[in-house]
Amino acid sequence: MGLHRVVAPVGVLPQAAERLDASPELWPGEVRIRVERLNLDAASFRQLSDKHGDAVRAEVLAIIEARGKMHNPVTGSGGMLVGVVDEVTPESPLGLKPGDRVATLVSLTLTPLRITDGLARWDGHSEQVPAEGHAILFARSIAAVLPYDLPVPLALSVMDVCGAPALTQRVVTPGSVVAVIGAAGKSGSLSLAAARRAGAARLIGIVPHAREAEKLTTAGLADEVVIADARDPVALAAAVSQAGGPADVTVVCVDVPGCEHGSILATRDGGTVIFFSMATSFSAAALGAEGLAADVTMLVGNGYAPGHADLALDLLRSEPGVRGLFEGRLA
Amino acid sequence: MGLHRVVAPVGVLPQAAERLDASPELWPGEVRIRVERLNLDAASFRQLSDKHGDAVRAEVLAIIEARGKMHNPVTGSGGMLVGVVDEVTPESPLGLKPGDRVATLVSLTLTPLRITDGLARWDGHSEQVPAEGHAILFARSIAAVLPYDLPVPLALSVMDVCGAPALTQRVVTPGSVVAVIGAAGKSGSLSLAAARRAGAARLIGIVPHAREAEKLTTAGLADEVVIADARDPVALAAAVSQAGGPADVTVVCVDVPGCEHGSILATRDGGTVIFFSMATSFSAAALGAEGLAADVTMLVGNGYAPGHADLALDLLRSEPGVRGLFEGRLA
Repeated sequence: MGLHRVVAPVGVLPQAAERLDASPELWPGEVRIRVERLNLDAASFRQLSDKHGDAVRAEVLAIIEARGKMHNPVTGSGGMLVGVVDEVTPESPLGLKPGDRVATLVSLTLTPLRITDGLARWDGHSEQVPAEGHAILFARSIAAVLPYDLPVPLALSVMDVCGAPALTQRVVTPGSVVAVIGAAGKSGSLSLAAARRAGAARLIGIVPHAREAEKLTTAGLADEVVIADARDPVALAAAVSQAGGPADVTVVCVDVPGCEHGSILATRDGGTVIFFSMATSFSAAALGAEGLAADVTMLVGNGYAPGHADLALDLLRSEPGVRGLFEGRLA
Repeated sequence: MGLHRVVAPVGVLPQAAERLDASPELWPGEVRIRVERLNLDAASFRQLSDKHGDAVRAEVLAIIEARGKMHNPVTGSGGMLVGVVDEVTPESPLGLKPGDRVATLVSLTLTPLRITDGLARWDGHSEQVPAEGHAILFARSIAAVLPYDLPVPLALSVMDVCGAPALTQRVVTPGSVVAVIGAAGKSGSLSLAAARRAGAARLIGIVPHAREAEKLTTAGLADEVVIADARDPVALAAAVSQAGGPADVTVVCVDVPGCEHGSILATRDGGTVIFFSMATSFSAAALGAEGLAADVTMLVGNGYAPGHADLALDLLRSEPGVRGLFEGRLA
């Protein structure tokens, strides 16, 4: 877990730490990466850019220097990085070898990082930061080898949301009715494809407006494409019901607050709601189900499951509809 | 669900409504209760009392008058009520009959309520409010008939947390190792008893200090009683491990923030964490599991499950250790 790299305060996990030791010498179990690019978290880049303007480069360097990691103290977020494996200790369980080009799937907020080129090649206008330096992976870190057959931005964009299809595939059983809220988005389209693969009998894709509906219809990933406001519980439940619901499994992939009650109401008694949106309110979900006397299982979307990156990349390769939606977003 | 009682804004669920229609005439499916007592939510009472002092009675009356429900606009919380069933429409699925003394298990924030005695018998010094008036239950509301064999405060205090043992019993399988955080509390002790009944092989009760440890040891509900700070992930995981963990199922019942990472670390890969604490942060749980590469299922504790009140009361009756802890809290 990297506790030995925590400088202050002692005893907390690396993510909670104020400062990490980013020295290049490896402890048993660690891997060192030669950094090629940082992808700053969108919220973090926006905050830094708004506040520091042209001085954003100096500010990012100062944070990394002070903290031994790229952990924005205001937003609390980090991002991910791409690099090449430089050295692997024999005790590392990650299965990486020198020369592998990898993306880290754990946050930069817990990854020891040192920059050696002053970020000289970065213009400060994009969250994509060309960089030289090194980063450390722990035994419990996660990194995925980048596939040869896909452009790096496309692969990264899939890996960013690969927890959603993995958990969806686990939860959906053959013959189920599955509703996905935010179905034309990245995690939504992958979740639809994963549900189909798990044997779902009916896939209902919920989108907020006609433009998204058209995209999803073209992609051909859902049996029914429904336009509804997920923040309106009664309207959402009615729309899902009319499209063949209530759902056995409802997957919430849309990053707007206030979708808890609607997703609960759209799900049958004994069914499951999976919350992947970071805008989910724990208490709104818990009290909402109680207030509606809804006997539903509610899952916190875990961004990790064994094999999640491979599954998501495989869905992208095998489902032209998924690939089309992803490429459309990157265009 | 009571949409027909929503006056403003139109289309939202009763809990989200600014104002409900609390008139006594029943719609099909409804039940009318003659109110005897309101139990204000502790957070709500504290806020009202701090702000309004001796004028707290007038303020509570004003809220109920304006909103048609006891829904504190600052804290967003309500409470529950005790009363006697007055009239039941033939369409009601709740199984109540006139004369039943019941407690509502859904929040006052969604229960139409009218007060007729000006709360004249309430001194304003306690969240227990003697009251006359009526309240309305919908078809999807939940109310439990108060048992004859238990004092009303004891029964209420059990019903307040009855979702926790119900979900714990569902999730725990025979032979499991179960860790309960906040094990000497109300939901914690009931969860231990429910886990035992579900066939758990080893019960680990986590408490914050020696006084609670003594209480839990006396109650005899856990195989191991462990003192640990649940906000310190590494210490918690080590303590659970030493007591026979990692846990197959970890139940979080302690209402302090920052217990997400510790409960995840204390749980084995493939295990389950049930979050019952309203202090749980959705994003800390989701990102924490991802950052630790922890393959755990995380459940949002649902306060409702069919038969939850009966199960909890039955555990209280059959487990002297549970009853002792509850009576100790009320003394």
